Amino acid sequence: MGSDVRGDQGISRGPSIGPSIAEILDSHAGGTGSPVKTATRVADAIAARGDDGTWLSTVPRDELLAAAAAIESRPGARTLPLYGVPFGVKDSIDVAGVPTTLSCPDYAYIPETTAPAVQRLLDAGALYVGKTNLDQFATGLNGTRTPYTVPRSVFGGELISGGSSSGSALAVALGQVPFAVATDTAGSGRVPAALNGVVGFKPSRGLISTVGLVPACKSLDCLSVMAGCIDDVDRVFDVMAARDDADSWYRDRGPRYAGGPIRVGLPPVAELEFFGDDAMRAAHLGFREQLERQAVIVEVSLAPFLAAGALLYQGPWVAERLVEFGDFLAEKPDSIHPVVREIFRSGLTYTAVDAFAALQKLQDLKAEVARLWQHMDILVVPTIGTTFTVEQVLDRPIDCNTMLGHYTHFGNLLDLLGVAVPLGVTSDGRPYSAMLLGNALSDDTALTLAAQILDEPRAAAAAADSAVKEQV
Amino acid sequence: MGSDVRGDQGISRGPSIGPSIAEILDSHAGGTGSPVKTATRVADAIAARGDDGTWLSTVPRDELLAAAAAIESRPGARTLPLYGVPFGVKDSIDVAGVPTTLSCPDYAYIPETTAPAVQRLLDAGALYVGKTNLDQFATGLNGTRTPYTVPRSVFGGELISGGSSSGSALAVALGQVPFAVATDTAGSGRVPAALNGVVGFKPSRGLISTVGLVPACKSLDCLSVMAGCIDDVDRVFDVMAARDDADSWYRDRGPRYAGGPIRVGLPPVAELEFFGDDAMRAAHLGFREQLERQAVIVEVSLAPFLAAGALLYQGPWVAERLVEFGDFLAEKPDSIHPVVREIFRSGLTYTAVDAFAALQKLQDLKAEVARLWQHMDILVVPTIGTTFTVEQVLDRPIDCNTMLGHYTHFGNLLDLLGVAVPLGVTSDGRPYSAMLLGNALSDDTALTLAAQILDEPRAAAAAADSAVKEQV
Repeated sequence: MGSDVRGDQGISRGPSIGPSIAEILDSHAGGTGSPVKTATRVADAIAARGDDGTWLSTVPRDELLAAAAAIESRPGARTLPLYGVPFGVKDSIDVAGVPTTLSCPDYAYIPETTAPAVQRLLDAGALYVGKTNLDQFATGLNGTRTPYTVPRSVFGGELISGGSSSGSALAVALGQVPFAVATDTAGSGRVPAALNGVVGFKPSRGLISTVGLVPACKSLDCLSVMAGCIDDVDRVFDVMAARDDADSWYRDRGPRYAGGPIRVGLPPVAELEFFGDDAMRAAHLGFREQLERQAVIVEVSLAPFLAAGALLYQGPWVAERLVEFGDFLAEKPDSIHPVVREIFRSGLTYTAVDAFAALQKLQDLKAEVARLWQHMDILVVPTIGTTFTVEQVLDRPIDCNTMLGHYTHFGNLLDLLGVAVPLGVTSDGRPYSAMLLGNALSDDTALTLAAQILDEPRAAAAAADSAVKEQV
Repeated sequence: MGSDVRGDQGISRGPSIGPSIAEILDSHAGGTGSPVKTATRVADAIAARGDDGTWLSTVPRDELLAAAAAIESRPGARTLPLYGVPFGVKDSIDVAGVPTTLSCPDYAYIPETTAPAVQRLLDAGALYVGKTNLDQFATGLNGTRTPYTVPRSVFGGELISGGSSSGSALAVALGQVPFAVATDTAGSGRVPAALNGVVGFKPSRGLISTVGLVPACKSLDCLSVMAGCIDDVDRVFDVMAARDDADSWYRDRGPRYAGGPIRVGLPPVAELEFFGDDAMRAAHLGFREQLERQAVIVEVSLAPFLAAGALLYQGPWVAERLVEFGDFLAEKPDSIHPVVREIFRSGLTYTAVDAFAALQKLQDLKAEVARLWQHMDILVVPTIGTTFTVEQVLDRPIDCNTMLGHYTHFGNLLDLLGVAVPLGVTSDGRPYSAMLLGNALSDDTALTLAAQILDEPRAAAAAADSAVKEQV
C-alpha cells in the first residue's frame, strides 16, 4: 500500500489509499494501534477534508470513538475478522437510527433496522463511520446528480467522481476507510471505482442480501464493495455474503476457483469504444498486451453484451425504478433532481407489452452469451471508455452518462459479476481501469484474475490450495 | 390398456384409450401389425367419428398410408423408438407444408419448416396424423374458444373437452393415437387431460424446444405430451427433449429419480377449492386417503402458489400475449374470437411499471415456494376442482375459465412441472384427475410417482436401476 497510484510512480494526484484491512488488523493485534486510535485517525482525516461531497452524514467524533471503545471492550471482539475496521455505507442502505436520504432530502427517512449485510459487518467487529454520497436514487453513473456537494475525483482536474456510488469510492480513494459498501445496478459500483483508482467489486446478484437497500431496479440491484485491494474485497465479501431468507433474490456462492489457466475473453480491438479518447485507448491496449502475455486469450465479440446494454438504457427497465419511486414522482416531482426526474418520467411511457418484449429479447441475448461462457472464464474490457469533467457532464447529462455506462450497462441484465481493477494513469494523468466480467457465480475466478493483475498473492495461495486438494 | 376408465369398472362413457406405444411397437415388430396397418386403423377411426372438433386438419388417407409405407421402407426404421407410431400435433405448432391456424383462419400460415421437437418425433419413426383443435391462440382452458366445431369431453353429458389443447387430449382419449403433442402455458396441457381421462405431462420449461411454436406467453410456454400412460409419456419425452441452441429457454434435463421415498406435499383440506362440487371433493379426498397410505406426506400450504396464480390471471402477463398478437389485434380485431379479443385488449391496459412490480412480487413468491421444496418432492392437488358443460362456459366464459385454472395457473410462473394423472370418475360419472407438481427439473421424480399412482411398472424399474447404481 502506498500513497501513489498503483503501478505508476511520480503521479502527484490520485488515490491515497490508507492502510489495508490486514494492516489495520495487524496494528490492532500488535498493539501499535487500536480501534480507538483507528477511529481517531478516521475522524481526523474526514474533518481535515471538510465537506468535499464524500459523506452525507458521519458519526460524530465522540460517538465514533465511543463506538470504537465499545468494540474494544466487547468480549471476544479481538478475534473478529473486521475487529475495529472502519467503513462507510452508501446512503441508499439502511443503518438503524441514521437517515437514509438517497441524496434526496425530501425522501429521507430514519430506519429502525440496519440492513442485514451491514449488520454482518458490525457483528464482525467493523466500525461504522458514516453514509456516503450518491447520484440521487442511485440513478446515474457520474456523481453530479446530488443536491449536496458534488464530489470530484481524487485525480483532480475537475474530473467527476463517477457514480452512483460516488462517496463510497472517494472514501476509500482518500484513505479514510479501507472499504465502503456501495451498490451496482448498471455500473454504480464500478464506474466511480474506475474514476478514483480503487477496486470496485460487484458480486453475482443474490450473494449479498439487498434487504435494507432502497431498490433502484430491484431485479438488478446488487450490494457491492469498494476497497483498495483484492485481499480487502475478499475479507469483506466473506463477511457480507450469507443466506438471507428475507431476500427473494438470494443465491449461494459458486465454487472456488479450481486452479489452472483462466481463459480470458478479449473483444476485437475494432469493437472497443473510447469515444475519441486516444490516451485511454493507448493505456487499455497497453494493458491488454501485458494480459496477453499472462493469460490464455480468446477473442469474443461484444455484440450481444452491448445489445443487452442498449436494452437497459433504451428500454423499459427504467420503469422498474418507478415501482419504488412512482408515488414519490407523482406527489413531489419538485423534490427530485431535474435530470433524475426526466429519467423517471420516461419510465411512464413504456407498456407491459414493451416490458415483456424486452424480457424476451433479453432471454435471447442471455442464451447467446451463455454459449460464449463455454469458451472463456472471464471477459476483460475497459471499465470506462473515457472520463469527463463535472462541467462536461452538467452540459450533457444524459449523453455523458450513457458513454460512462457503455461497458457496465449490460452486466446485471446478463447476470454477470464485475470487478473494476485500477491500473494506473493514462499518459495525460487520468485513471484507467479494466473490468473483469464473469458469468454468475464465477466470482472467485474473477477475483483470482484481478489479484493476478494487481500482483497480489491471492492467486498463488488459491492455486496452492487447489493443488493440495487435487493431491487429496 | 382397456376400454374403460382406468381403475373404475362399469362406466359406459369415458376414454377408449387405444394400444400403447409399447403395444404398437410389439405388433410392428412381431408382424401382427405394421405401420401401414396402424395408419389404416387410425384413418378409419378418425373417419368414423366425422367432424367432432378433435382435428383441424388430417393427412389425407392415401397420403397417410403412403407415409406409413415410406417409414416401413426407410432403412433401419424398424429399430427406431417410435417406429410407425401415429401422433397428432396441436395446431399452434409448425409442421412443414401444413397450415398452422391457431384456430384462427385469418391468422393461418403455411410454415416451411417443422418444429424441431416434432421433427425429432418424425426422425424417430413416428407417423404424423394431423393438427388438433385448440382454444384460439392457445388462450383458454375450456375448449369452446374455436371457430371450428367445439369439441366435447369423451365423458359425454355435454362436458367441455377442456383447453386449450382440446384436440390433443381427445385424440388420445378416443384411442385414435397413443400420444399427441400439446402445449401448456397456464394449464393448457393438463386441464383437457383431466376432462378426458388421459395423462397430461407438462415438463419443466426448456426441456423440449419451443421453436416452431407460435408463442402464447413466450416466457412461460412449454410443449407438453398427452398420452394414455406414463410409459408412453416416457418414450415420447425421451425423443422430444434435446438441446436446441435456437431455443433461448433451453435447459438440460434434471437428474433421474434417485430412489427412496418420495415426500408428497398435500395442502390442508380446508385450502382445497371444489367450487361446491361435492362429488369431485369426495373423489379427490378418497384418492388422498390412498396416497397417504402409499407415500410420505407433508402438509404444505397452497397460499403462495395461489398468489402466483392470481398474479397470472389478474396481472400483466396477458400483455405478453400481445408481443406476438398485438399487431394482429390492431389490424384484424374482427378475426379474433370475441372472448379472446376481450382478453387480448385487457393486456393493453398494463404499464411496464405494472409488469416489473408483478415480476418482483413473483420473485418473492418463487423464493417462498423454493423453501417449500426443501421439505417435499412433489405437491399433489386436484387438476381441476370441478367440471363444466359447454353451455355453462359459453354463459360465463371468463369465470368458468378462471375456476378451471385454479390449480394450474401458477405452475409455469413458478417454474414447476406438472403431470395430470387420470384417476377414474366421480360418483356421478365425471372424470377426476390429480395433478403432480414438482420443482423445475424434478420431472423424473414426478413421473415416477405418477407411475406408482397408476400402478405402472416404471417406478419399480427405476428403483431397481437406482439400487444397481448404488451397489456399483
